[in-house]
Amino acid sequence: MRLTIGVDIGGTKIAAGVVDPQGRLLRRTTHATPADDPVALADAVARTVDELGWERPDDEVVAIGVGVAGFVDEDRSTVVVAPNLGLRDEPLKERVQQRVDLPVVIENDANAAAWAEARFGAGRGSDHVVCVTLGTGVGGGLVLNGEVYRGRHGVASEVGHYRVVPYGRRCGCGNHGCWEQYASGRALEAEAQDLAKANPARAERLLKLANNDASAIAGQEVTQAAFEGDEGALACFRVVGAWVGVGLADLAAILDPECFVIGGGVSDAGDVLLEPARHAFQQNVTGRAVRRIAEVRVAELGSEAGIVGAADLSCR
Amino acid sequence: MRLTIGVDIGGTKIAAGVVDPQGRLLRRTTHATPADDPVALADAVARTVDELGWERPDDEVVAIGVGVAGFVDEDRSTVVVAPNLGLRDEPLKERVQQRVDLPVVIENDANAAAWAEARFGAGRGSDHVVCVTLGTGVGGGLVLNGEVYRGRHGVASEVGHYRVVPYGRRCGCGNHGCWEQYASGRALEAEAQDLAKANPARAERLLKLANNDASAIAGQEVTQAAFEGDEGALACFRVVGAWVGVGLADLAAILDPECFVIGGGVSDAGDVLLEPARHAFQQNVTGRAVRRIAEVRVAELGSEAGIVGAADLSCR
Amino acid sequence: MRLTIGVDIGGTKIAAGVVDPQGRLLRRTTHATPADDPVALADAVARTVDELGWERPDDEVVAIGVGVAGFVDEDRSTVVVAPNLGLRDEPLKERVQQRVDLPVVIENDANAAAWAEARFGAGRGSDHVVCVTLGTGVGGGLVLNGEVYRGRHGVASEVGHYRVVPYGRRCGCGNHGCWEQYASGRALEAEAQDLAKANPARAERLLKLANNDASAIAGQEVTQAAFEGDEGALACFRVVGAWVGVGLADLAAILDPECFVIGGGVSDAGDVLLEPARHAFQQNVTGRAVRRIAEVRVAELGSEAGIVGAADLSCR
Amino acid sequence: MRLTIGVDIGGTKIAAGVVDPQGRLLRRTTHATPADDPVALADAVARTVDELGWERPDDEVVAIGVGVAGFVDEDRSTVVVAPNLGLRDEPLKERVQQRVDLPVVIENDANAAAWAEARFGAGRGSDHVVCVTLGTGVGGGLVLNGEVYRGRHGVASEVGHYRVVPYGRRCGCGNHGCWEQYASGRALEAEAQDLAKANPARAERLLKLANNDASAIAGQEVTQAAFEGDEGALACFRVVGAWVGVGLADLAAILDPECFVIGGGVSDAGDVLLEPARHAFQQNVTGRAVRRIAEVRVAELGSEAGIVGAADLSCR
Repeated sequence: MRLTIGVDIGGTKIAAGVVDPQGRLLRRTTHATPADDPVALADAVARTVDELGWERPDDEVVAIGVGVAGFVDEDRSTVVVAPNLGLRDEPLKERVQQRVDLPVVIENDANAAAWAEARFGAGRGSDHVVCVTLGTGVGGGLVLNGEVYRGRHGVASEVGHYRVVPYGRRCGCGNHGCWEQYASGRALEAEAQDLAKANPARAERLLKLANNDASAIAGQEVTQAAFEGDEGALACFRVVGAWVGVGLADLAAILDPECFVIGGGVSDAGDVLLEPARHAFQQNVTGRAVRRIAEVRVAELGSEAGIVGAADLSCR
Repeated sequence: MRLTIGVDIGGTKIAAGVVDPQGRLLRRTTHATPADDPVALADAVARTVDELGWERPDDEVVAIGVGVAGFVDEDRSTVVVAPNLGLRDEPLKERVQQRVDLPVVIENDANAAAWAEARFGAGRGSDHVVCVTLGTGVGGGLVLNGEVYRGRHGVASEVGHYRVVPYGRRCGCGNHGCWEQYASGRALEAEAQDLAKANPARAERLLKLANNDASAIAGQEVTQAAFEGDEGALACFRVVGAWVGVGLADLAAILDPECFVIGGGVSDAGDVLLEPARHAFQQNVTGRAVRRIAEVRVAELGSEAGIVGAADLSCR
Repeated sequence: MRLTIGVDIGGTKIAAGVVDPQGRLLRRTTHATPADDPVALADAVARTVDELGWERPDDEVVAIGVGVAGFVDEDRSTVVVAPNLGLRDEPLKERVQQRVDLPVVIENDANAAAWAEARFGAGRGSDHVVCVTLGTGVGGGLVLNGEVYRGRHGVASEVGHYRVVPYGRRCGCGNHGCWEQYASGRALEAEAQDLAKANPARAERLLKLANNDASAIAGQEVTQAAFEGDEGALACFRVVGAWVGVGLADLAAILDPECFVIGGGVSDAGDVLLEPARHAFQQNVTGRAVRRIAEVRVAELGSEAGIVGAADLSCR
Repeated sequence: MRLTIGVDIGGTKIAAGVVDPQGRLLRRTTHATPADDPVALADAVARTVDELGWERPDDEVVAIGVGVAGFVDEDRSTVVVAPNLGLRDEPLKERVQQRVDLPVVIENDANAAAWAEARFGAGRGSDHVVCVTLGTGVGGGLVLNGEVYRGRHGVASEVGHYRVVPYGRRCGCGNHGCWEQYASGRALEAEAQDLAKANPARAERLLKLANNDASAIAGQEVTQAAFEGDEGALACFRVVGAWVGVGLADLAAILDPECFVIGGGVSDAGDVLLEPARHAFQQNVTGRAVRRIAEVRVAELGSEAGIVGAADLSCR
């Protein structure tokens, strides 16, 4: 069987695994990410790959895909910039290839994860999938016409940074009113903290979970309280969910996907988030009277998506 | 030489032409569009094609592409809905094919025009082109990875109907705050008419061109006055141009194209419109400090784009 | 008993009446408004007053108050501009006084109505009343510290034209995003008409009341359907009511009134409108955790308010 | 001569002075503010008053006015809530009166300052003055019909907390999109810091003044750089100034003042701030074609306004 290896380089750890043609993760390992040192990073990736060493009579690892949180050039060789990893114009493909003696390709990690979901996860069977990752911020990955869509310079699918509110909330990207400021995990926290300050009675459960410190309410408290049926927490999810749906409506107008796959920590809330999101999506998408409404699904592969996607893309 | 025929069915006339492999329009003809009668429409298309009849020893017309303003199904056979033509679930491909005895494909007209610009016009040489048509409304066509991007159900690239202002201006599509309400020819007219009502002195030239009837100021008056250097008209273009640019910034965040091609009547103003658009685009696009900024160009093919694009797509 | 006469000059009719010190309307008459002719207008006002002629042993009419829809100067003598009546710098006080031989004062009609409500209507007993008239547009009248508040130049309380949405809906005043475009009768109609076009099923009842012509749905149809419990109509009132409440929150931040009195045709819907308005008001007013929340009441005097207020103000 | 004493209780210091009927400050003193102790606070106020002890043959101190940053009840006796001073339902008038043996009234500090400016400062001669204080936040004080306007419950003129942007920036008051988030000193800093992060070249001077630490750029750096003509700093003032002007336009629609008096630290920039503010005001105020445009002036009394206003109000 032709196997591939996927490597997902995050800010704190390198996760890697052996993946079969059906997208199954056969073996997995992780290492700490060396800080701000491209050579040490390549060494660590190589060591991780060695460690996975897969030898069975009928199997062969044929290629390695490496996902990084950063801009990757169109040849999938160079990391143009990856702020969290301290990389700039880093020839990562070449450096890793020298060490592992196998074909290597570099991918943007969100694209890799989107590919995995589109091929093997919540979007399987569809050629037009928009993945939205609701983590601290909002990221995205596009699978269009059955292919990862990277744009001309590899920086497409920055869906968290299109503007939903003129003169809106300040964003770390230097703009105001970015979708990320309304639909992310940080937005959910801010919503809950504001509620706790403005209306402590309504946020009683949330406050209790955070030891009565409004500014300590984090996403997991909101999710837990919402699962318990707490009305304050549910209200926060309704606000954020509605913004998720409004953004999906805009993306549907432009991209007409068959389905949206929603991942990231906020999506752990499942339908608590997705029901208001779907509702707002359907209420806002243009042409809703005649178009087929795209499905909105929760991602299925979780943190494995980056490994599986990078692996699978390495031999395409 | 292998030639193709492109047919562009508009609300009032059918324009058609013979196109060579380099996108040149070798011959052209037009007919009136029969109203609300699919059979008469197919007859008229066939007659138009016959009339173009092209017979030279070394040439051969091998296929026909028909562009319509409406949703086309994924097989490029059926017009799902075309409000202006009164069509619904119309098997246009079959009906035309029976009459002309040549392979026929149906295309959305904006997609056809975008394809022509990307292949032979302002976007030639690029595989990632976003075309935006600023007419009465705002339409769009996407060429991604070198192919027309139609979405899952053929309704992608409705860029005029993503939302730029929450609770914004009402749009005919049933939503509020659509980009079309801020960046279209109708927006330009409204801007000029508002100026004429609120500040007649500043709109003196505009009013004169419209026989002192503020509500009669149309796009061509604004364009003419702007070309003359009239400050009132230029101010209107600056407002609309800025909205064009803001929208391009959002589209660039999502699609990362190599260039934007701006067509439609409003684009006749050229740099009068595009300079403020480029400025706003550069000021608003996310990652502007590190990304390569896409070019913003005026469409080159004008009203021929629909014919040329439909023709060229017929044999791909 | 000392009586006064109030005259309310509207675009189509002049309504007048004799008012006692308790704000009771003892007798009433109406005449057509002469068009665009200040002299004829003064004649008509005088005739109306004569007609009311009130002679009883113990009663005496001591002054006349005339309300007009327009800007009135600080001496309450001159109509600076009244577009609907074709008046500009019109010495209306003098002209009427010559004809009736009684002291006359001129008032802005919205101020007169607000005064009546604050003294004798829904706001009686309070010295801080903000009246908001939700008619075709949105007007306002302020009673602050127990007095009509007119501003420095008589143009205060144009509450319909403060901005609630940047880049919002175009307003006849030349601005965009005025409160009037969101909270008025016209906004209610637009909401209902949009619903009927976008979602005919949900607007079934509304469409039936308007003979299936979406663009013919007017305020009274929406009110009637809402009274019947129709969900589509109620949804329209919820949208407009929420905007009413948001505006009240802004006005409360600035003016801290004891109560709001809501009049005009839209207020005929009573709690159907006011419940969502109160809810949005309470959710949005600054300092809501500690401040006393102003009451939101329906106007009580209806179309008599203008007469009663103008009369009562004539002798203060 | 009948004199009065004004006391301005701030979070860190108590400033007090003797004021003559022409609003002149004849003598002045300051003390530290005791923290969170109402009794110690009253003691400190009394000591401050004693220290001012004014004895001349023809003079007599007849009353004391005390300004506090908080809500004051309608009898001007009780501090309902003053978060920065740790007061709640504090009978401050009585407590001070017992110690000083003179009539005492309590005032909101912003109202006191507004009164001083309207009587003796930039607004003198006018009966309709809106004062806006652009400090860290945005405060306001209204003089209407020649009197301080306090509203029904003493909480009027919270102009910093009406909403200018739906879904706008989060505000400490629990709302979003408050004017304060766009027109305050904090907004100016955020604008400059954002500029420095997004466009270091344009913010070169600002960065230099802040030792190259973008997040250390404060209002005074922006003001200094603007005075030097630095284009980046001027751009920040243009943004904030435009928001100031938009807000003034809204306030003018509601209140029709004769003039606006702009105070607070941001107003130290003078015309650098006020020119863009006036421009935006004139471009946005409703009825601008026919109304008289209120003047926009810089406050004249600086930090003395609170003392002078509290003093003068004590004997009215």
